[in-house]
Amino acid sequence: MRFPLITLLTDFGLEDEYVGVMKGVLLSIHPRAVVVDLCHQVPPGDVEKAGWLLAWSWKYFPKGTIHVVVVDPGVGSSRKILCLDFEGHLFLAPDNGLLSHVVREEKRPRLYAVTNRRYALKAVSHTFHGRDLFAPAAGYLSRGLSPSRLGPRTDEFKRLPSLEPTPGDGKKIEGRIIALDRFGNAVTNLSAPLVDRFKKKGRVRIDVGDARLRGRQGRLRGVQRSYSAVPKGTPLTVIGSHDLLEIAVNRGSAERKLRLKIGDPVVLRVE
Amino acid sequence: MRFPLITLLTDFGLEDEYVGVMKGVLLSIHPRAVVVDLCHQVPPGDVEKAGWLLAWSWKYFPKGTIHVVVVDPGVGSSRKILCLDFEGHLFLAPDNGLLSHVVREEKRPRLYAVTNRRYALKAVSHTFHGRDLFAPAAGYLSRGLSPSRLGPRTDEFKRLPSLEPTPGDGKKIEGRIIALDRFGNAVTNLSAPLVDRFKKKGRVRIDVGDARLRGRQGRLRGVQRSYSAVPKGTPLTVIGSHDLLEIAVNRGSAERKLRLKIGDPVVLRVE
Amino acid sequence: MRFPLITLLTDFGLEDEYVGVMKGVLLSIHPRAVVVDLCHQVPPGDVEKAGWLLAWSWKYFPKGTIHVVVVDPGVGSSRKILCLDFEGHLFLAPDNGLLSHVVREEKRPRLYAVTNRRYALKAVSHTFHGRDLFAPAAGYLSRGLSPSRLGPRTDEFKRLPSLEPTPGDGKKIEGRIIALDRFGNAVTNLSAPLVDRFKKKGRVRIDVGDARLRGRQGRLRGVQRSYSAVPKGTPLTVIGSHDLLEIAVNRGSAERKLRLKIGDPVVLRVE
Repeated sequence: MRFPLITLLTDFGLEDEYVGVMKGVLLSIHPRAVVVDLCHQVPPGDVEKAGWLLAWSWKYFPKGTIHVVVVDPGVGSSRKILCLDFEGHLFLAPDNGLLSHVVREEKRPRLYAVTNRRYALKAVSHTFHGRDLFAPAAGYLSRGLSPSRLGPRTDEFKRLPSLEPTPGDGKKIEGRIIALDRFGNAVTNLSAPLVDRFKKKGRVRIDVGDARLRGRQGRLRGVQRSYSAVPKGTPLTVIGSHDLLEIAVNRGSAERKLRLKIGDPVVLRVE
Repeated sequence: MRFPLITLLTDFGLEDEYVGVMKGVLLSIHPRAVVVDLCHQVPPGDVEKAGWLLAWSWKYFPKGTIHVVVVDPGVGSSRKILCLDFEGHLFLAPDNGLLSHVVREEKRPRLYAVTNRRYALKAVSHTFHGRDLFAPAAGYLSRGLSPSRLGPRTDEFKRLPSLEPTPGDGKKIEGRIIALDRFGNAVTNLSAPLVDRFKKKGRVRIDVGDARLRGRQGRLRGVQRSYSAVPKGTPLTVIGSHDLLEIAVNRGSAERKLRLKIGDPVVLRVE
Repeated sequence: MRFPLITLLTDFGLEDEYVGVMKGVLLSIHPRAVVVDLCHQVPPGDVEKAGWLLAWSWKYFPKGTIHVVVVDPGVGSSRKILCLDFEGHLFLAPDNGLLSHVVREEKRPRLYAVTNRRYALKAVSHTFHGRDLFAPAAGYLSRGLSPSRLGPRTDEFKRLPSLEPTPGDGKKIEGRIIALDRFGNAVTNLSAPLVDRFKKKGRVRIDVGDARLRGRQGRLRGVQRSYSAVPKGTPLTVIGSHDLLEIAVNRGSAERKLRLKIGDPVVLRVE
């Protein structure tokens, strides 16, 4: 019982039996495992979003947690399955970039290619490796199996391109929206330290979204402390819970009010 | 391990990582805590609905349960965080009325203002107190921490106005719809004992919704024992699982069929 | 603690407090029970779909698991509640056909009518037996209560008609779509062994959906090994994770692309 805690992050949704069945397999192998749903509503195949959710979450779990990530549009193809041993956590994911934001700076992370069918269900389908390969592997890991038993070390794995904004001239930097949450808050790739550096130089201005909206609601001055620093229904920017600059509307939805979408540019500058 | 069971009631939804991360923090502090999702689909900021859900739920959990309620549009403002010690249960919630229906008749409930940052994450954001303050406090409480360690006693807290119907003339009373569930059942604020008192006086009639609908499908006679007491597709009233009068349609949706919404009047009278 | 693991399969959704309250009742009776959500998003009253989800899931849980299935449009009527003891698993469900696909070939399954109110909540509503009867019964079973204590043996129970396709002439068989999942994959009632028998006779062709679509995208040749065997956006058939023939689109939705719905015919033939 070295790793009793297992998180699940998938695009399986909750309208089918897929997540429940994964838990059945896990608990068949390790009845005392504690399974936590990180999120199952990742849009089908959205590796990018799942990668962010994972990066924003794993550190809040105790060391020894096993994170199982199954957003796997290439299931049944020749794509590898990876097991990552990183800062005391274990991760299982298909090799499609999901782990990029976890290992970001790490040049040679401790990775294994999961190939040993001894730690799989007897019958392995070509369409549901979450049940047949990921859940069994996680179950055995949670019982204390060494990751090295799952397969050989590997150094090759897919990395998504970094979404760090390209450094500007020190007075202006262009970032973008990387996530929209249930509340309609728009998370950008502009980090709190970066914003702090700009704030030290003068009053900052943030232009959100396309030109049509700029100069109207999409031009925001200053960074507020919390949503309620502005009147109800008013757009604002704030350092959100991911330590990233966030576009929000107090008690409203920035996504709807400013008609934002993933990828929209967000320009930070010193006025 | 005095309080191993923790319930979560939030408006975080399930499409982001927020609920999962709260569980990570909880389990980091108390790995043996048992966490139950009460509901996370409260509409964003809907304190009213969350208050009802909580009031209808907490008594079904064993004494010693800790109920964490984070519907918190004022996060980051000066609103207090409360810990309530009530009938053997503990509650953590922002001070915005969420606990009103729990303590209804209680004049001076045992309340604490949660101020002690010793039982919080080291870095406290201004946008996600569920993770940074509520989850850690619940984690420590579940390990046996006394609520009094979280902060000083307080007697001031926000109460929502009671939704009890104004007493009528004994032959007629006007209530209203306070909740619509997934099945399209409409829960009213007319209690089972009240309905019983009316039934003793004669045959009861219930007029639902606006005048346009009355006299047609919105005029219901008698209170049925169960949904299936009327033919399929027929509207009826019944004492529902909250011990409140409910408008329903057998194997259908009263919300859709009678076009009901929260707040619609429901008039109970003796014919 | 003979049966510590309990699964829940309902049509309660996640927007109300119903599932949470069932867990409160369960954990009040057996605090060490481990409760797993199989699915709560079954469309209201959809006994057919719940029956499939259950049939596809239960075997992935360890022996001793208790499966609680509450899709119960007849709640409060005279319909029975059943407890089934089958291959080391226990099942609690209303007598409306939910267990049909579990016991399929079994002539006289070991069934009990749940009548003993000693293992129920004190107050039993007519609208929420999940809370008042199913959860308590499951709680006591998980503590080791014998199913025979819940009520008398019964041999009468409702069976849904089998959805096996009618055997064709050996060269052609007409099945149909029995489920559509979150990804838009369409599960048919044509089993892997049946498809294998056809494949041994020659090249197979599958015609999906109505005539209007046939000859275009709805005519599929051969059965692929996995989704990624065809180019992105292309329809295919595959043996899916239920060991049934599935209509899919690589990295897309067959439901949307081919405009499929439950019940649509799927004709398998040897060309």
